[in-house]
Amino acid sequence: MVRYKAIIAYDGTNFNGFQRQNNGRTIQEELEKTISKMASQPIKVHGSGRTDAGVHALGQVIHFDFPYERPLERMRFALDTQSPEDIAVKNVEIVTEKFHARYLVKEKVYEFHVDIGTPKNPFTRNYASYYPYQLDFDKIKKALPDFLGTHDFTSFCASGSSIDDKTRTIYEATMQVSHSGNELIFTFRGDGFLYKMIRIMVGTLLKIGNGRLETDSIPKIIAAKDRHFAGPTAHPQGLYLKEVRY
Amino acid sequence: MVRYKAIIAYDGTNFNGFQRQNNGRTIQEELEKTISKMASQPIKVHGSGRTDAGVHALGQVIHFDFPYERPLERMRFALDTQSPEDIAVKNVEIVTEKFHARYLVKEKVYEFHVDIGTPKNPFTRNYASYYPYQLDFDKIKKALPDFLGTHDFTSFCASGSSIDDKTRTIYEATMQVSHSGNELIFTFRGDGFLYKMIRIMVGTLLKIGNGRLETDSIPKIIAAKDRHFAGPTAHPQGLYLKEVRY
Repeated sequence: MVRYKAIIAYDGTNFNGFQRQNNGRTIQEELEKTISKMASQPIKVHGSGRTDAGVHALGQVIHFDFPYERPLERMRFALDTQSPEDIAVKNVEIVTEKFHARYLVKEKVYEFHVDIGTPKNPFTRNYASYYPYQLDFDKIKKALPDFLGTHDFTSFCASGSSIDDKTRTIYEATMQVSHSGNELIFTFRGDGFLYKMIRIMVGTLLKIGNGRLETDSIPKIIAAKDRHFAGPTAHPQGLYLKEVRY
Repeated sequence: MVRYKAIIAYDGTNFNGFQRQNNGRTIQEELEKTISKMASQPIKVHGSGRTDAGVHALGQVIHFDFPYERPLERMRFALDTQSPEDIAVKNVEIVTEKFHARYLVKEKVYEFHVDIGTPKNPFTRNYASYYPYQLDFDKIKKALPDFLGTHDFTSFCASGSSIDDKTRTIYEATMQVSHSGNELIFTFRGDGFLYKMIRIMVGTLLKIGNGRLETDSIPKIIAAKDRHFAGPTAHPQGLYLKEVRY
């Protein structure tokens, strides 16, 4: 068997998340269908991690073992064109059997897009979270660095997570306004993120920008280790898994 | 009755075009439903012209007569929020009864987006036409000005049009490459466009860029007054009605 690593992008709108499950269309299932058909045998696909329903990917990473070697661009092209229209295969490479898409992740980069225009942009209704309320960008920019470093992020983890160790390290937390001025784009880079963590971080930052939470409240929320202190969970359609680093 | 003019945007993906018809969801029908409900009586909506199924609008113009006057921003907000998610109401103003969204059009501006990236962008599958073949941008740029001026555009009109006079004046015909390098954006401005005219113009330009038509062939195609001489009709999802001028 030859192990392939692939970088894929997908529009999460019409998926019930990445991970195969009994109900609903998933990215993993569609990829396994495509690759198994190409291989004429059942092939399992491993992703760097799940993404929730409606969440997008610009650079999700997967690996799978294929029964024989194919030239890389031919493999990429076949995977890309035989996958559904809302999945794209950007890059394929051959890796050793030591590579694992999930276990060896060093960093993940996520983006979160917020539509702040009036009216709501009908073209980004599935690709950004709409926030029509007043925002002080300076307050958000002042609060963002408080996420940097190594912290127990229990307050920013949705209930239902089975993970015990909620300590994560954040290397980058920035925000920029799009060229049109109608979108905020948040970027977060860290060694890993808890269940719904980025969506809760964004929900909290928007609450700060709107003046309903103090600008310096993030260290206090982290210290509380209680989900109730953080802001609401922002909508999934604004979230993009941008890059996975190994 | 008070006549309102409104500038609207819509994602054409889930519409069977602008114009009300017996089968399928249309923009006109959705707007008439919303406005009639607000007015508690049947209200007819007039657009600047039709757009086909899958075609988008950034600045379609409509007018309608409303039984009483409402403050402009309140009217815009009500229309916007009570319309379906894939229609946005950008601007509303009160006009005299002499205004007519269709009869008084002076110029229309259209954009056409072509995804030229590898792989196809899953996020623009409904918002650009995909063209994965080789393109010489210089050939396209050289050919574009041949559309300028007043011509009989019979060769660039789809069969099935009932319009007799196929003379139109084109004021602007340009192409630019997007910042990412993965999209071509064509802009066309003219006093009016025939049925599927822009899509046939783009199909012809792509054929020129791909080297399957001579760079100087547009004047000959125009002179032929025969649809068979032009290139294929580009896909509707790349087309945007950008602006209507009065």
